[in-house]
Amino acid sequence: MCELLGMSANVPTDICFSFTGLMHRGGGTGPHKDGWGIAFYEGKGLRTFHDPAPSVDSKIARLIAEYPIKSCTVISHIRQANVGNISLENTHPFSRELWGRQWCFAHNGQLDPALFSWPLNYYLPVGTTDSEFAFCWLLGEIRHHFPTPPQDMNRLIQFVHERCETLRSLGVFNMLLSESTLLFTYCSSKLSWITRRSPFGEARLSDCEMAVNFEAVTTPNDIVTVIATEPLTNNENWNRYETGEMVIFIEGIPVRHLHSLS
Amino acid sequence: MCELLGMSANVPTDICFSFTGLMHRGGGTGPHKDGWGIAFYEGKGLRTFHDPAPSVDSKIARLIAEYPIKSCTVISHIRQANVGNISLENTHPFSRELWGRQWCFAHNGQLDPALFSWPLNYYLPVGTTDSEFAFCWLLGEIRHHFPTPPQDMNRLIQFVHERCETLRSLGVFNMLLSESTLLFTYCSSKLSWITRRSPFGEARLSDCEMAVNFEAVTTPNDIVTVIATEPLTNNENWNRYETGEMVIFIEGIPVRHLHSLS
Repeated sequence: MCELLGMSANVPTDICFSFTGLMHRGGGTGPHKDGWGIAFYEGKGLRTFHDPAPSVDSKIARLIAEYPIKSCTVISHIRQANVGNISLENTHPFSRELWGRQWCFAHNGQLDPALFSWPLNYYLPVGTTDSEFAFCWLLGEIRHHFPTPPQDMNRLIQFVHERCETLRSLGVFNMLLSESTLLFTYCSSKLSWITRRSPFGEARLSDCEMAVNFEAVTTPNDIVTVIATEPLTNNENWNRYETGEMVIFIEGIPVRHLHSLS
Repeated sequence: MCELLGMSANVPTDICFSFTGLMHRGGGTGPHKDGWGIAFYEGKGLRTFHDPAPSVDSKIARLIAEYPIKSCTVISHIRQANVGNISLENTHPFSRELWGRQWCFAHNGQLDPALFSWPLNYYLPVGTTDSEFAFCWLLGEIRHHFPTPPQDMNRLIQFVHERCETLRSLGVFNMLLSESTLLFTYCSSKLSWITRRSPFGEARLSDCEMAVNFEAVTTPNDIVTVIATEPLTNNENWNRYETGEMVIFIEGIPVRHLHSLS
Protein backbone atom coordinates (compact mmCIF):
# COMPACT_ATOMS: atom_id res chain seq x y z
CA MET A 1 0.00 0.00 0.00
CA CYS A 2 1.36 3.41 -0.98
CA GLU A 3 0.36 6.83 0.26
CA LEU A 4 -1.01 9.64 -1.84
CA LEU A 5 -0.94 13.34 -1.03
CA GLY A 6 -2.52 16.07 -3.13
CA MET A 7 -3.20 19.76 -2.73
CA SER A 8 -5.41 22.25 -4.53
CA ALA A 9 -5.41 25.92 -3.53
CA ASN A 10 -6.58 29.31 -4.78
CA VAL A 11 -3.25 30.98 -3.94
CA PRO A 12 0.25 29.52 -4.29
CA THR A 13 0.70 27.64 -1.04
CA ASP A 14 3.56 25.57 0.27
CA ILE A 15 2.98 21.96 1.29
CA CYS A 16 5.82 21.76 3.84
CA PHE A 17 3.51 20.87 6.75
CA SER A 18 1.60 18.05 5.03
CA PHE A 19 4.72 16.77 3.28
CA THR A 20 6.50 16.52 6.63
CA GLY A 21 3.72 14.23 7.82
CA LEU A 22 3.82 12.14 4.66
CA MET A 23 7.61 11.88 4.71
CA HIS A 24 7.56 10.34 8.16
CA ARG A 25 5.45 7.50 6.77
CA GLY A 26 8.18 6.78 4.20
CA GLY A 27 10.17 4.27 6.20
CA GLY A 28 9.53 6.09 9.51
CA THR A 29 6.08 5.47 10.97
CA GLY A 30 4.94 3.65 7.79
CA PRO A 31 6.29 0.82 5.63
CA HIS A 32 6.54 2.91 2.42
CA LYS A 33 10.27 2.85 2.00
CA ASP A 34 10.54 2.22 -1.75
CA GLY A 35 10.82 5.76 -3.02
CA TRP A 36 8.80 8.92 -3.16
CA GLY A 37 8.04 11.72 -5.54
CA ILE A 38 6.32 15.09 -5.66
CA ALA A 39 5.15 17.34 -8.50
CA PHE A 40 4.33 21.05 -8.19
CA TYR A 41 2.52 23.00 -10.87
CA GLU A 42 3.60 26.60 -11.27
CA GLY A 43 1.30 28.03 -13.94
CA LYS A 44 1.55 25.50 -16.78
CA GLY A 45 5.03 24.46 -15.66
CA LEU A 46 5.57 21.28 -13.69
CA ARG A 47 8.43 20.83 -11.27
CA THR A 48 9.03 17.26 -10.12
CA PHE A 49 11.29 15.60 -7.60
CA HIS A 50 11.76 11.83 -7.55
CA ASP A 51 13.84 9.65 -5.32
CA PRO A 52 13.88 5.84 -5.18
CA ALA A 53 15.36 6.11 -1.64
CA PRO A 54 13.14 6.12 1.49
CA SER A 55 11.75 9.62 2.06
CA VAL A 56 12.59 9.60 5.75
CA ASP A 57 16.33 9.42 4.85
CA SER A 58 16.24 11.52 1.69
CA LYS A 59 18.27 14.69 1.46
CA ILE A 60 16.01 15.88 -1.36
CA ALA A 61 12.88 15.15 0.72
CA ARG A 62 14.37 17.22 3.53
CA LEU A 63 14.87 20.07 1.08
CA ILE A 64 11.18 19.91 0.05
CA ALA A 65 10.00 19.79 3.66
CA GLU A 66 12.07 22.86 4.53
CA TYR A 67 12.00 24.87 1.29
CA PRO A 68 8.60 26.48 0.71
CA ILE A 69 7.96 25.83 -2.99
CA LYS A 70 4.57 27.48 -3.54
CA SER A 71 2.02 25.96 -5.87
CA CYS A 72 -1.74 25.79 -6.45
CA THR A 73 -1.72 22.11 -7.47
CA VAL A 74 0.52 19.43 -5.96
CA ILE A 75 0.62 15.64 -6.36
CA SER A 76 2.83 13.49 -4.18
CA HIS A 77 3.32 9.79 -3.53
CA ILE A 78 5.38 7.50 -1.35
CA ARG A 79 5.77 3.96 -2.45
CA GLN A 80 5.73 0.48 -1.07
CA ALA A 81 6.65 -1.57 -4.12
CA ASN A 82 4.39 -4.40 -5.23
CA VAL A 83 4.49 -4.51 -9.06
CA GLY A 84 7.79 -3.28 -10.54
CA ASN A 85 11.21 -3.14 -8.87
CA ILE A 86 12.56 -0.17 -6.91
CA SER A 87 13.99 2.23 -9.46
CA LEU A 88 13.71 5.82 -10.59
CA GLU A 89 11.53 4.97 -13.60
CA ASN A 90 9.06 3.19 -11.31
CA THR A 91 8.76 6.15 -8.93
CA HIS A 92 5.51 8.17 -9.01
CA PRO A 93 4.22 10.70 -9.95
CA PHE A 94 4.34 10.02 -13.69
CA SER A 95 3.84 12.73 -16.29
CA ARG A 96 3.10 13.02 -20.01
CA GLU A 97 2.17 15.92 -22.27
CA LEU A 98 -1.30 16.22 -23.85
CA TRP A 99 -2.77 19.38 -25.46
CA GLY A 100 0.42 21.27 -24.62
CA ARG A 101 -0.14 20.58 -20.95
CA GLN A 102 1.80 18.42 -18.55
CA TRP A 103 -0.50 15.78 -17.09
CA CYS A 104 0.64 14.28 -13.83
CA PHE A 105 -0.57 11.09 -12.15
CA ALA A 106 -0.05 9.08 -8.98
CA HIS A 107 -1.76 5.82 -8.00
CA ASN A 108 -2.21 3.77 -4.88
CA GLY A 109 -3.38 0.18 -5.11
CA GLN A 110 -2.74 -2.84 -7.25
CA LEU A 111 -4.35 -3.91 -10.51
CA ASP A 112 -4.81 -7.33 -12.09
CA PRO A 113 -1.98 -8.23 -14.53
CA ALA A 114 -4.67 -8.49 -17.24
CA LEU A 115 -4.14 -4.72 -17.46
CA PHE A 116 -0.85 -5.28 -19.31
CA SER A 117 -2.70 -6.71 -22.31
CA TRP A 118 -4.80 -3.55 -22.76
CA PRO A 119 -3.94 -1.65 -25.95
CA LEU A 120 -1.77 1.47 -25.70
CA ASN A 121 -1.91 3.95 -28.55
CA TYR A 122 -0.02 7.14 -27.80
CA TYR A 123 1.84 6.74 -24.54
CA LEU A 124 4.14 3.90 -23.53
CA PRO A 125 5.40 3.18 -20.04
CA VAL A 126 9.09 3.73 -19.31
CA GLY A 127 9.07 1.52 -16.21
CA THR A 128 7.32 -1.70 -15.27
CA THR A 129 4.60 -0.70 -12.80
CA ASP A 130 0.88 -1.34 -13.23
CA SER A 131 0.42 2.30 -12.20
CA GLU A 132 2.36 3.84 -15.09
CA PHE A 133 0.69 1.41 -17.51
CA ALA A 134 -2.73 2.48 -16.22
CA PHE A 135 -1.77 6.15 -16.63
CA CYS A 136 -0.59 5.58 -20.22
CA TRP A 137 -3.84 3.79 -20.99
CA LEU A 138 -6.01 6.43 -19.32
CA LEU A 139 -4.26 9.39 -20.98
CA GLY A 140 -4.28 7.60 -24.33
CA GLU A 141 -8.05 7.15 -23.95
CA ILE A 142 -8.47 10.85 -23.16
CA ARG A 143 -6.33 11.78 -26.18
CA HIS A 144 -8.24 9.44 -28.45
CA HIS A 145 -11.65 10.80 -27.42
CA PHE A 146 -10.59 14.42 -26.99
CA PRO A 147 -7.85 15.21 -29.55
CA THR A 148 -8.27 18.84 -28.47
CA PRO A 149 -9.52 20.21 -25.12
CA PRO A 150 -13.34 19.97 -24.95
CA GLN A 151 -15.38 23.15 -24.60
CA ASP A 152 -17.50 21.46 -21.97
CA MET A 153 -15.21 20.28 -19.17
CA ASN A 154 -18.05 18.23 -17.70
CA ARG A 155 -17.76 15.84 -20.64
CA LEU A 156 -14.09 15.32 -19.85
CA ILE A 157 -14.74 14.84 -16.14
CA GLN A 158 -17.46 12.28 -16.79
CA PHE A 159 -15.22 10.45 -19.26
CA VAL A 160 -12.31 10.26 -16.80
CA HIS A 161 -14.66 8.99 -14.09
CA GLU A 162 -15.97 6.23 -16.38
CA ARG A 163 -12.42 5.14 -17.24
CA CYS A 164 -11.45 5.15 -13.56
CA GLU A 165 -14.41 2.88 -12.86
CA THR A 166 -13.15 0.59 -15.63
CA LEU A 167 -9.69 0.50 -14.02
CA ARG A 168 -11.24 -0.22 -10.61
CA SER A 169 -12.75 -3.39 -12.09
CA LEU A 170 -9.15 -4.71 -12.11
CA GLY A 171 -8.43 -4.12 -8.44
CA VAL A 172 -7.60 -1.21 -6.16
CA PHE A 173 -7.31 2.15 -7.91
CA ASN A 174 -6.99 5.29 -5.78
CA MET A 175 -5.72 8.10 -7.98
CA LEU A 176 -4.65 11.73 -8.24
CA LEU A 177 -4.47 13.30 -11.71
CA SER A 178 -4.03 16.87 -12.94
CA GLU A 179 -3.31 18.96 -16.02
CA SER A 180 -2.47 22.00 -13.85
CA THR A 181 -5.80 23.61 -12.88
CA LEU A 182 -8.17 20.66 -12.43
CA LEU A 183 -7.27 18.11 -9.77
CA PHE A 184 -9.05 14.79 -10.38
CA THR A 185 -9.20 12.62 -7.26
CA TYR A 186 -10.70 9.14 -7.37
CA CYS A 187 -11.19 6.61 -4.60
CA SER A 188 -11.38 2.89 -4.84
CA SER A 189 -10.67 1.92 -1.24
CA LYS A 190 -9.12 4.70 0.81
CA LEU A 191 -8.86 8.47 0.38
CA SER A 192 -9.76 11.51 2.50
CA TRP A 193 -9.86 15.25 1.97
CA ILE A 194 -10.15 18.41 3.99
CA THR A 195 -10.70 22.01 2.91
CA ARG A 196 -9.19 24.67 5.13
CA ARG A 197 -10.52 28.22 4.90
CA SER A 198 -11.12 31.19 7.15
CA PRO A 199 -11.36 31.09 10.13
CA PHE A 200 -8.21 28.96 10.15
CA GLY A 201 -7.18 27.07 13.25
CA GLU A 202 -4.36 24.91 14.49
CA ALA A 203 -3.61 21.51 12.96
CA ARG A 204 -1.53 18.77 14.56
CA LEU A 205 0.19 16.04 12.54
CA SER A 206 -0.58 12.43 13.45
CA ASP A 207 2.85 11.09 12.47
CA CYS A 208 5.23 13.38 14.32
CA GLU A 209 5.32 16.12 16.91
CA MET A 210 4.40 19.09 14.79
CA ALA A 211 1.58 21.60 14.76
CA VAL A 212 0.91 24.67 12.69
CA ASN A 213 -1.41 27.59 13.27
CA PHE A 214 -2.70 28.22 9.76
CA GLU A 215 -4.13 31.58 10.77
CA ALA A 216 -0.59 32.92 11.08
CA VAL A 217 0.41 31.91 7.54
CA THR A 218 -2.76 32.60 5.52
CA THR A 219 -5.02 35.45 4.47
CA PRO A 220 -8.81 35.37 5.01
CA ASN A 221 -9.39 34.61 1.30
CA ASP A 222 -7.19 31.52 1.12
CA ILE A 223 -8.82 28.20 0.33
CA VAL A 224 -6.58 25.15 0.58
CA THR A 225 -7.67 21.55 0.13
CA VAL A 226 -5.47 18.61 1.06
CA ILE A 227 -6.20 15.06 -0.12
CA ALA A 228 -4.46 12.08 1.48
CA THR A 229 -4.74 8.30 1.73
CA GLU A 230 -5.21 8.66 5.48
CA PRO A 231 -5.96 11.89 7.36
CA LEU A 232 -2.65 13.55 8.20
CA THR A 233 -3.87 15.43 11.26
CA ASN A 234 -5.61 14.17 14.38
CA ASN A 235 -7.58 17.24 15.44
CA GLU A 236 -9.57 18.05 12.28
CA ASN A 237 -12.55 16.49 10.54
CA TRP A 238 -11.52 14.94 7.24
CA ASN A 239 -14.07 13.78 4.64
CA ARG A 240 -13.70 10.13 3.67
CA TYR A 241 -14.42 9.20 0.04
CA GLU A 242 -16.81 6.42 -0.86
CA THR A 243 -15.78 3.65 -3.22
CA GLY A 244 -16.06 4.86 -6.81
CA GLU A 245 -16.31 8.51 -5.79
CA MET A 246 -14.50 11.17 -7.81
CA VAL A 247 -14.09 14.74 -6.58
CA ILE A 248 -12.76 17.47 -8.86
CA PHE A 249 -11.01 20.41 -7.23
CA ILE A 250 -10.32 23.78 -8.83
CA GLU A 251 -8.49 26.39 -6.78
CA GLY A 252 -9.13 24.47 -3.57
CA ILE A 253 -12.88 24.16 -4.14
CA PRO A 254 -14.62 20.81 -4.71
CA VAL A 255 -16.50 21.71 -7.91
CA ARG A 256 -17.84 18.29 -8.89
CA HIS A 257 -18.68 15.07 -7.05
CA LEU A 258 -19.32 11.91 -9.06
CA HIS A 259 -20.46 8.67 -7.47
CA SER A 260 -19.90 5.03 -8.34
CA LEU A 261 -21.58 3.97 -11.56
CA SER A 262 -22.19 0.43 -10.31
CA MET B 1 23.13 33.27 -25.06
CA CYS B 2 22.59 30.32 -22.76
CA GLU B 3 25.04 27.73 -21.56
CA LEU B 4 24.82 24.00 -22.13
CA LEU B 5 26.46 21.28 -20.07
CA GLY B 6 26.33 17.58 -20.86
CA MET B 7 28.01 14.45 -19.55
CA SER B 8 28.38 10.92 -20.85
CA ALA B 9 30.20 8.29 -18.78
CA ASN B 10 30.72 4.55 -18.63
CA VAL B 11 30.16 4.42 -14.87
CA PRO B 12 27.66 6.44 -12.82
CA THR B 13 29.54 9.67 -12.15
CA ASP B 14 28.58 12.81 -10.31
CA ILE B 15 28.68 16.14 -12.08
CA CYS B 16 29.24 18.28 -8.95
CA PHE B 17 32.54 19.74 -10.19
CA SER B 18 31.36 20.80 -13.64
CA PHE B 19 27.98 21.93 -12.34
CA THR B 20 29.71 24.17 -9.80
CA GLY B 21 31.48 25.89 -12.69
CA LEU B 22 28.28 26.22 -14.70
CA MET B 23 26.29 27.50 -11.72
CA HIS B 24 28.70 30.38 -11.24
CA ARG B 25 27.87 31.55 -14.74
CA GLY B 26 24.17 31.68 -13.79
CA GLY B 27 24.08 35.28 -12.61
CA GLY B 28 27.59 35.15 -11.10
CA THR B 29 30.39 35.36 -13.70
CA GLY B 30 27.90 35.11 -16.59
CA PRO B 31 24.65 36.86 -17.58
CA HIS B 32 22.50 33.70 -17.56
CA LYS B 33 20.23 34.58 -14.70
CA ASP B 34 16.89 33.47 -16.13
CA GLY B 35 16.70 29.98 -14.73
CA TRP B 36 18.48 26.69 -14.97
CA GLY B 37 17.70 23.01 -15.15
CA ILE B 38 19.43 19.66 -15.03
CA ALA B 39 18.37 16.13 -15.95
CA PHE B 40 20.05 12.92 -14.80
CA TYR B 41 19.37 9.54 -16.34
CA GLU B 42 19.47 6.61 -13.95
CA GLY B 43 18.88 3.57 -16.11
CA LYS B 44 15.77 4.44 -18.11
CA GLY B 45 14.57 6.78 -15.37
CA LEU B 46 15.02 10.52 -15.68
CA ARG B 47 15.39 12.81 -12.69
CA THR B 48 15.02 16.50 -13.42
CA PHE B 49 15.42 19.71 -11.45
CA HIS B 50 14.19 23.03 -12.81
CA ASP B 51 14.34 26.48 -11.31
CA PRO B 52 13.38 29.76 -12.99
CA ALA B 53 15.56 31.58 -10.40
CA PRO B 54 19.26 32.37 -11.06
CA SER B 55 21.39 29.31 -10.38
CA VAL B 56 23.94 31.24 -8.36
CA ASP B 57 21.24 32.02 -5.74
CA SER B 58 19.29 28.77 -5.99
CA LYS B 59 18.95 26.55 -2.96
CA ILE B 60 18.14 23.64 -5.25
CA ALA B 61 21.24 24.34 -7.38
CA ARG B 62 23.33 24.29 -4.23
CA LEU B 63 21.86 20.89 -3.36
CA ILE B 64 22.87 19.55 -6.80
CA ALA B 65 26.38 21.00 -6.53
CA GLU B 66 26.86 19.37 -3.14
CA TYR B 67 24.85 16.17 -3.41
CA PRO B 68 26.57 13.61 -5.64
CA ILE B 69 23.73 12.30 -7.80
CA LYS B 70 25.48 9.71 -9.98
CA SER B 71 24.50 9.22 -13.59
CA CYS B 72 25.91 8.06 -16.93
CA THR B 73 24.06 10.70 -18.96
CA VAL B 74 23.38 14.26 -17.84
CA ILE B 75 21.95 17.30 -19.66
CA SER B 76 21.99 20.73 -18.07
CA HIS B 77 21.24 24.29 -19.15
CA ILE B 78 21.34 27.79 -17.74
CA ARG B 79 19.26 30.38 -19.46
CA GLN B 80 19.42 33.94 -20.61
CA ALA B 81 15.91 34.51 -21.91
CA ASN B 82 15.40 35.76 -25.45
CA VAL B 83 12.23 34.11 -26.79
CA GLY B 84 9.66 33.29 -24.07
CA ASN B 85 9.30 34.89 -20.64
CA ILE B 86 11.00 33.67 -17.46
CA SER B 87 8.86 30.86 -16.11
CA LEU B 88 9.08 27.24 -15.10
CA GLU B 89 7.53 25.96 -18.34
CA ASN B 90 10.18 27.83 -20.35
CA THR B 91 13.06 26.36 -18.36
CA HIS B 92 15.23 23.72 -20.10
CA PRO B 93 15.83 20.81 -20.32
CA PHE B 94 12.54 19.68 -21.86
CA SER B 95 11.44 16.05 -21.96
CA ARG B 96 8.89 13.89 -23.76
CA GLU B 97 8.34 10.14 -24.00
CA LEU B 98 8.94 8.21 -27.24
CA TRP B 99 9.29 4.39 -27.57
CA GLY B 100 8.82 4.06 -23.78
CA ARG B 101 11.90 6.18 -23.25
CA GLN B 102 12.25 9.64 -21.80
CA TRP B 103 13.88 11.92 -24.37
CA CYS B 104 15.52 15.00 -22.96
CA PHE B 105 16.64 18.14 -24.80
CA ALA B 106 18.38 21.46 -24.18
CA HIS B 107 19.16 24.18 -26.71
CA ASN B 108 21.36 27.22 -26.90
CA GLY B 109 20.80 29.80 -29.60
CA GLN B 110 17.89 31.53 -31.24
CA LEU B 111 15.77 30.51 -34.21
CA ASP B 112 13.79 32.53 -36.72
CA PRO B 113 10.11 32.93 -35.72
CA ALA B 114 9.23 31.18 -39.01
CA LEU B 115 9.81 28.03 -36.91
CA PHE B 116 6.48 28.56 -35.17
CA SER B 117 4.60 27.85 -38.41
CA TRP B 118 6.18 24.40 -38.82
CA PRO B 119 3.67 21.58 -38.37
CA LEU B 120 3.62 19.66 -35.09
CA ASN B 121 2.06 16.21 -35.07
CA TYR B 122 2.57 14.39 -31.81
CA TYR B 123 4.15 16.74 -29.32
CA LEU B 124 2.99 20.24 -28.39
CA PRO B 125 4.96 22.81 -26.44
CA VAL B 126 3.82 23.70 -22.93
CA GLY B 127 5.73 26.99 -22.86
CA THR B 128 6.51 29.65 -25.43
CA THR B 129 10.20 29.20 -26.29
CA ASP B 130 11.59 28.51 -29.76
CA SER B 131 13.67 25.79 -28.08
CA GLU B 132 10.75 23.70 -26.84
CA PHE B 133 8.97 24.17 -30.17
CA ALA B 134 12.08 22.93 -32.01
CA PHE B 135 12.26 19.92 -29.68
CA CYS B 136 8.57 19.07 -30.26
CA TRP B 137 9.14 19.31 -34.02
CA LEU B 138 12.35 17.24 -33.95
CA LEU B 139 10.91 14.48 -31.75
CA GLY B 140 7.71 14.45 -33.82
CA GLU B 141 9.84 13.96 -36.95
CA ILE B 142 11.71 11.09 -35.29
CA ARG B 143 8.42 9.50 -34.21
CA HIS B 144 6.92 9.88 -37.65
CA HIS B 145 9.89 8.27 -39.43
CA PHE B 146 10.68 5.71 -36.75
CA PRO B 147 7.42 4.63 -35.07
CA THR B 148 9.51 1.95 -33.36
CA PRO B 149 13.24 2.00 -32.53
CA PRO B 150 15.28 1.22 -35.68
CA GLN B 151 17.50 -1.86 -35.74
CA ASP B 152 20.28 0.20 -37.29
CA MET B 153 21.03 3.11 -34.97
CA ASN B 154 23.12 4.76 -37.70
CA ARG B 155 19.93 5.48 -39.62
CA LEU B 156 18.52 7.29 -36.59
CA ILE B 157 21.75 9.23 -36.01
CA GLN B 158 21.90 10.35 -39.63
CA PHE B 159 18.25 11.35 -39.55
CA VAL B 160 18.68 13.45 -36.39
CA HIS B 161 21.74 15.13 -37.90
CA GLU B 162 19.81 16.05 -41.06
CA ARG B 163 16.98 17.55 -39.00
CA CYS B 164 19.46 19.51 -36.87
CA GLU B 165 20.94 20.93 -40.07
CA THR B 166 17.41 21.94 -41.10
CA LEU B 167 16.90 23.71 -37.76
CA ARG B 168 20.27 25.47 -38.13
CA SER B 169 18.99 27.03 -41.34
CA LEU B 170 16.73 29.11 -39.04
CA GLY B 171 19.52 30.50 -36.86
CA VAL B 172 21.73 29.33 -34.02
CA PHE B 173 21.08 25.78 -32.86
CA ASN B 174 23.49 24.21 -30.40
CA MET B 175 21.85 21.18 -28.85
CA LEU B 176 22.07 18.30 -26.41
CA LEU B 177 19.60 15.41 -26.79
CA SER B 178 19.36 11.96 -25.22
CA GLU B 179 17.07 8.98 -24.79
CA SER B 180 19.25 7.63 -21.92
CA THR B 181 22.19 5.80 -23.53
CA LEU B 182 22.96 7.85 -26.66
CA LEU B 183 23.95 11.48 -26.14
CA PHE B 184 23.46 13.50 -29.34
CA THR B 185 25.47 16.74 -29.33
CA TYR B 186 25.20 19.21 -32.19
CA CYS B 187 27.01 22.47 -32.77
CA SER B 188 25.87 25.46 -34.73
CA SER B 189 28.17 28.14 -33.29
CA LYS B 190 29.79 27.17 -30.01
CA LEU B 191 30.34 23.87 -28.23
CA SER B 192 33.36 22.04 -26.79
CA TRP B 193 34.00 18.61 -25.34
CA ILE B 194 36.67 16.79 -23.39
CA THR B 195 37.07 13.10 -22.57
CA ARG B 196 38.83 12.28 -19.33
CA ARG B 197 40.32 8.83 -18.86
CA SER B 198 43.29 7.19 -17.15
CA PRO B 199 45.82 8.60 -16.33
CA PHE B 200 43.60 11.25 -14.74
CA GLY B 201 45.06 14.57 -13.66
CA GLU B 202 44.01 17.74 -11.92
CA ALA B 203 41.44 20.11 -13.43
CA ARG B 204 40.90 23.73 -12.42
CA LEU B 205 37.62 25.58 -12.99
CA SER B 206 37.77 28.83 -14.97
CA ASP B 207 34.83 30.44 -13.15
CA CYS B 208 35.74 30.02 -9.51
CA GLU B 209 38.54 28.92 -7.24
CA MET B 210 38.10 25.19 -7.39
CA ALA B 211 40.23 22.29 -8.52
CA VAL B 212 39.75 18.55 -8.40
CA ASN B 213 42.23 15.73 -8.72
CA PHE B 214 40.22 13.21 -10.75
CA GLU B 215 42.69 10.44 -10.00
CA ALA B 216 41.52 10.42 -6.40
CA VAL B 217 37.84 9.94 -7.34
CA THR B 218 38.02 7.55 -10.32
CA THR B 219 39.13 4.04 -11.20
CA PRO B 220 41.49 3.30 -14.13
CA ASN B 221 38.58 2.06 -16.28
CA ASP B 222 36.44 5.21 -15.98
CA ILE B 223 35.71 7.21 -19.12
CA VAL B 224 33.92 10.52 -18.61
CA THR B 225 33.13 13.04 -21.33
CA VAL B 226 31.94 16.55 -20.56
CA ILE B 227 30.39 18.81 -23.21
CA ALA B 228 29.96 22.54 -22.59
CA THR B 229 29.27 25.76 -24.48
CA GLU B 230 32.66 27.06 -23.34
CA PRO B 231 35.46 24.99 -21.79
CA LEU B 232 34.88 24.88 -18.03
CA THR B 233 38.52 24.38 -17.04
CA ASN B 234 41.59 26.40 -17.91
CA ASN B 235 44.32 23.77 -17.72
CA GLU B 236 43.01 21.08 -20.08
CA ASN B 237 42.68 20.76 -23.84
CA TRP B 238 39.05 20.85 -24.92
CA ASN B 239 37.94 19.93 -28.47
CA ARG B 240 35.97 22.64 -30.20
CA TYR B 241 33.14 21.56 -32.51
CA GLU B 242 32.88 22.83 -36.05
CA THR B 243 29.67 24.36 -37.35
CA GLY B 244 27.25 21.60 -38.34
CA GLU B 245 29.19 18.92 -36.47
CA MET B 246 27.38 16.24 -34.51
CA VAL B 247 29.13 13.91 -32.08
CA ILE B 248 27.34 10.93 -30.57
CA PHE B 249 28.57 9.68 -27.21
CA ILE B 250 27.85 6.31 -25.68
CA GLU B 251 29.30 5.54 -22.23
CA GLY B 252 31.70 8.47 -22.50
CA ILE B 253 33.08 7.43 -25.89
CA PRO B 254 32.59 9.52 -29.05
CA VAL B 255 31.22 6.77 -31.30
CA ARG B 256 30.18 8.81 -34.33
CA HIS B 257 31.21 12.16 -35.82
CA LEU B 258 29.04 13.73 -38.53
CA HIS B 259 30.02 16.87 -40.36
CA SER B 260 28.03 19.70 -41.90
CA LEU B 261 26.00 18.62 -44.92
CA SER B 262 26.36 22.01 -46.59
